[in-house]
Amino acid sequence: MLNTLDKSLSPASIAVLGASSREGTLSWALVNNLVKYGYKGMIFPVNPKAASIHSIKSYPTVNHIKDEVDLAVIMVPKDLVLGAIDDCGKKKIKAIMVITAGFKETGKEGAKTETELIARIKKYKMRLIGPNCMGLINTNPNVKMNCTFVPGTPIPGGIGFVSQSGALGAAVLKTVQQNDIGLAQFVSIGNKADVSGNTILEYWWHNDDIKVITMYLESFGDPRKFMELTRSITRTKPVIAIKSARTSAGMRAASSHTGALAASDKVVDAFLEQSGVIRVNTTEEMFDIAKAFDMAKLPAGNRVGILTNAGGPAILAVDECANWGLAVPDLSAKTKNKLKKLIPPEGSLSNPVDLLPPANAEVYSAATKAMMDDENIDSLIVIVGPPLMLDTLEIAEAVCRAASGTTKTVMLVMMSQDDVIPHLKEVMPVHPPVYRYPEYAARAISRLFTYRNWKERPEGIYRKFDSAKRTVSRILAKYRGKKNVYLSSGEVSDILNAYGLPMIGSVYANTTFDLIQISDKIKYPVVLKAVGSKLIHKSDMGGVEVDIHNPDELLRSAEKIIAKLKEKNSLHLLEKFQIQPFVSGGVETILGITKDEKAGPMIMFGLGGIFVEVFKDVNFKLVPINDIEAAGMIRSIKSFEMLKGVRGKKPVDLEYIAESLLRLSQLSSDFPEFEEIDLNPFVFFDEKEKCKILDARIRV
Amino acid sequence: MLNTLDKSLSPASIAVLGASSREGTLSWALVNNLVKYGYKGMIFPVNPKAASIHSIKSYPTVNHIKDEVDLAVIMVPKDLVLGAIDDCGKKKIKAIMVITAGFKETGKEGAKTETELIARIKKYKMRLIGPNCMGLINTNPNVKMNCTFVPGTPIPGGIGFVSQSGALGAAVLKTVQQNDIGLAQFVSIGNKADVSGNTILEYWWHNDDIKVITMYLESFGDPRKFMELTRSITRTKPVIAIKSARTSAGMRAASSHTGALAASDKVVDAFLEQSGVIRVNTTEEMFDIAKAFDMAKLPAGNRVGILTNAGGPAILAVDECANWGLAVPDLSAKTKNKLKKLIPPEGSLSNPVDLLPPANAEVYSAATKAMMDDENIDSLIVIVGPPLMLDTLEIAEAVCRAASGTTKTVMLVMMSQDDVIPHLKEVMPVHPPVYRYPEYAARAISRLFTYRNWKERPEGIYRKFDSAKRTVSRILAKYRGKKNVYLSSGEVSDILNAYGLPMIGSVYANTTFDLIQISDKIKYPVVLKAVGSKLIHKSDMGGVEVDIHNPDELLRSAEKIIAKLKEKNSLHLLEKFQIQPFVSGGVETILGITKDEKAGPMIMFGLGGIFVEVFKDVNFKLVPINDIEAAGMIRSIKSFEMLKGVRGKKPVDLEYIAESLLRLSQLSSDFPEFEEIDLNPFVFFDEKEKCKILDARIRV
Repeated sequence: MLNTLDKSLSPASIAVLGASSREGTLSWALVNNLVKYGYKGMIFPVNPKAASIHSIKSYPTVNHIKDEVDLAVIMVPKDLVLGAIDDCGKKKIKAIMVITAGFKETGKEGAKTETELIARIKKYKMRLIGPNCMGLINTNPNVKMNCTFVPGTPIPGGIGFVSQSGALGAAVLKTVQQNDIGLAQFVSIGNKADVSGNTILEYWWHNDDIKVITMYLESFGDPRKFMELTRSITRTKPVIAIKSARTSAGMRAASSHTGALAASDKVVDAFLEQSGVIRVNTTEEMFDIAKAFDMAKLPAGNRVGILTNAGGPAILAVDECANWGLAVPDLSAKTKNKLKKLIPPEGSLSNPVDLLPPANAEVYSAATKAMMDDENIDSLIVIVGPPLMLDTLEIAEAVCRAASGTTKTVMLVMMSQDDVIPHLKEVMPVHPPVYRYPEYAARAISRLFTYRNWKERPEGIYRKFDSAKRTVSRILAKYRGKKNVYLSSGEVSDILNAYGLPMIGSVYANTTFDLIQISDKIKYPVVLKAVGSKLIHKSDMGGVEVDIHNPDELLRSAEKIIAKLKEKNSLHLLEKFQIQPFVSGGVETILGITKDEKAGPMIMFGLGGIFVEVFKDVNFKLVPINDIEAAGMIRSIKSFEMLKGVRGKKPVDLEYIAESLLRLSQLSSDFPEFEEIDLNPFVFFDEKEKCKILDARIRV
Repeated sequence: MLNTLDKSLSPASIAVLGASSREGTLSWALVNNLVKYGYKGMIFPVNPKAASIHSIKSYPTVNHIKDEVDLAVIMVPKDLVLGAIDDCGKKKIKAIMVITAGFKETGKEGAKTETELIARIKKYKMRLIGPNCMGLINTNPNVKMNCTFVPGTPIPGGIGFVSQSGALGAAVLKTVQQNDIGLAQFVSIGNKADVSGNTILEYWWHNDDIKVITMYLESFGDPRKFMELTRSITRTKPVIAIKSARTSAGMRAASSHTGALAASDKVVDAFLEQSGVIRVNTTEEMFDIAKAFDMAKLPAGNRVGILTNAGGPAILAVDECANWGLAVPDLSAKTKNKLKKLIPPEGSLSNPVDLLPPANAEVYSAATKAMMDDENIDSLIVIVGPPLMLDTLEIAEAVCRAASGTTKTVMLVMMSQDDVIPHLKEVMPVHPPVYRYPEYAARAISRLFTYRNWKERPEGIYRKFDSAKRTVSRILAKYRGKKNVYLSSGEVSDILNAYGLPMIGSVYANTTFDLIQISDKIKYPVVLKAVGSKLIHKSDMGGVEVDIHNPDELLRSAEKIIAKLKEKNSLHLLEKFQIQPFVSGGVETILGITKDEKAGPMIMFGLGGIFVEVFKDVNFKLVPINDIEAAGMIRSIKSFEMLKGVRGKKPVDLEYIAESLLRLSQLSSDFPEFEEIDLNPFVFFDEKEKCKILDARIRV
């Protein structure tokens, strides 16, 4: 099948429906941009009232055009959009972009029109970008298409940028040149009625023009698909994303904006991390980092060399390196010897190397070479301080020339030289990324390094454990059709045991009399629990007694529980008593499954007690998880240290925690019916055999 | 006495020693800057070889000048600096600035010359700025002095900027214009041989030209003085500082830079927080915030209104507001009614208010007024999205005009309009601060709001508790002349009790026989501890047994301790046994005093156990602290929730923790001899009477 996004992004001909001959209108600006940027195909303005637009013959309707039209850009008034689609359908145009606004983003009425728009798109087997978007760009020399209405001239490069906000897209396009950001393609997806961020991701995945993908998103249509796609893509191409509407206030603002229903930020963080997407907060940060991926090599290690003609900026760079876990190591004696010949005695031969302000292009070039050759260094930041009497463009050119062909990561910092930066492209079309502040270069290196580690991570394994799947099926069958019910404690035990999750053993007593009967047959110490299908928060109700040492204590404990339940008017909820071995020591954790409305089941891990209740220190991942992810979840909580054994305790069996997470993930994957599984506490010890789930809840 | 910094910063005449007639030299550039910027006083170039420089008569030495010289700028080669100082001494010049480098920053040799330089400065009763600095600026219309050698034209405003790094100073000066940053004064302090950051702070404190103080620092000469100064200054003027060399790597880099010995970042954080200084990490952030203080009013509350013509940027602003604890509340019905008349139905009347892209100056102006009048709003961010067909300078002007005279905080965001921003000053000399990104405006508002709260905080009280000061003096007298010794446990008890700090009671037994004798006279349960002047880490040695219930257990515990000490070959360190009541429950905390080499004694607070050992969750302050600071210390630890009572526990007596901190602070202030005081654990309960220090160490 023909990939119709080719027709959208590399069209041989474009019809602009609603093109205006009046300067100052958006549609005039779009045709003007196409012409001025040197579009390699044919432009067909469509306007019933104009003979020509921008010196190009205009047509009353698309069907008056004799040539084939690849892409139709629709800028007619809102009420005429559907008619225009019909015209395009007749003309057999397959790629449509609707710039016109006034659809879902404006409320119910608009949403209805949008639904109708989608229906026609399907009917004509078209692909639609928009509505309510601001255009497309493809800087490939064979296409040279600036099909937007915003000012600014895109410069070619390897960055793909997809934006859910037209204004942010426009803001970026206006500043690419002065910030030396090279775009390959840009797509403003607007309301995402058909083509979404995921569609573009799939399209760019195997497109050689795109070296790095950047995204501005306010919402996710299909978070799971996004995660699966980006997890694969990030093996070969970095993906950097702003997901705005992070806060609930931001979400409210977003939903009145492009009609987006935003996912909880906790969930978003989980699956962005899981998919290797680099999450950033501002467009400035996004393109600072994208530029680095586009123009620099990935660093082999975390060791950074810094070359400067000014001390202060170098110190800021060192601080920022340390902040991001990068090292600024000492240089080899050989390098120092080379540098000694270049640097006056007042300068510094140690890393950061200070050439002092008078250093000229020749000195910079030789020092750059010397440092790049140092085997102690993986990356190099070259800082050119604010210019005094020197031609800094000359210095920059010399540094770039010295760095060309290197296999190491090189970044250039030109402080207070906003006027110089755009000219670097003229003298050196291919050059390292340039920054205005040393901190930003250091930050970019850290992201390259993190990405390199991500890219080269071992392929995780989705382990399959033996399980008694049928046991679980049989229990769940009973609950089919029921909603929001908790399983009985016996069923919970059976399900967990079916998947090798070590629920602690129990005996039950239906009456106090039964309790007396079994009291001298059990092994002490034990825990006594009140059980009832409606007694969910039994600890809070006083329904749990621990560390019971003999039959006498057991009966007294039962009396205590009964008294407490009576006090809370809940005695009628008591169905039976549960007796379990008393476990002390170990580290209490929580393993769980919750369901996100859009993303589906998610697995959770954290330490129990104050760590979850007070500090909310938990990690989420989308189910299923692989072994690498399970290990990562354990290590990513802030209280991880507690598992390694503090205050004389032995470290717990981390591998067994990971295994338990994988078993729980498998259970959740096998049975999407589970709405909530809560293993709390799951106590881990240094020995696998001692680890037990002391309490568990399951909701279907 | 004459304030000689007046002569430095508002001189009536300047001699430039080492002025060159050769274009392209630094000294030529400095004279050129003075002339071009329109310096209101007289310039006297001094150069034995030139008759005139920059059309100004030149003099062979300063002593050839007949007029009085207020400020001498010394740019002669390093070896001639001391001679030049002598010349200036003869001429009775009191204000000196040495731009020449090659002093302390280059090593031992240079440090020697710098010492000699300082000696001469003292001898002639001069004030010295530098050496190794890059100049001075004063934009006051009566002075108009750009006495630097860097390119760029300062624009007048209310910001004072003092920089320890010449390059960063130069970087800022080069970008002030395009970023619309208005400077009042700038001082590059270089090596700080005489005039330091503190000197400038004192000078600017009562200078009406300075509305906000910004500082780039790599080191502190006298942190305590800095703290005391800024604590007072920030009552009337905000102080924003970058303290670089935050990391140990950065510190190493800094010390080879301006010869600075950097203080530990933990200490720096403590006293910056204590002094109300706003700490930032980058120059961009510093001036973003400084601009806000200079050009906007302080907000009365945390409620922010957002007005935009583009949805995406508004969402980013909302997110950022929420991040910093600012609210984006709903608007009043009245405001919405006003806005309804201005906004097309597709726009948004809710906060953030979306006018849609076609909104012109008139609409923006009316909407700005409507929102500023809303009583639900304390601050307003007006976002002008990237320009399409509109004259955004006209919009900006209209917004500024609408906002002029308001008592609320107004910020303007002009996205992708770097070309427009510098022109705003031309059409509206007084206008709200302008930002390129909405996030930065939100961040700035949060800093204004935090500062407002700081400024209006109640004056803290340094409480004085009754204390038996003489008891402590008597004990300390025994240790006079000794270094690094721990006091005996009896002395520790006496000292703490003298200051009302509730050390738990003890009885002692010198031998096992003594122990048997007292075993039936004490109240159980108790704790048994091994005591010895060299047994510092007694728990680790097995020297502590807890929860002892009767004489029999007591003796068995003593045997256990003896066995363990024997095992560790430490039995000979055992001097006696200590018996204390056993305390269970409560919350274990640590209160302590440590000494920083430069900042002096500091008080510490944190929770005990895993919170200090694993999470290092502690807060430091310089001694003495007042009641507000004590309360703040308790609330600023991450585990504060634990004190409020979690998992059914009662909250502990927070006021009594604060009182204990104040008592400890008083003890430390009264006796600077204490090198270390460690009250660990200090157990707090809901009732003051139950709170006890269970163990304590004091080192002198």
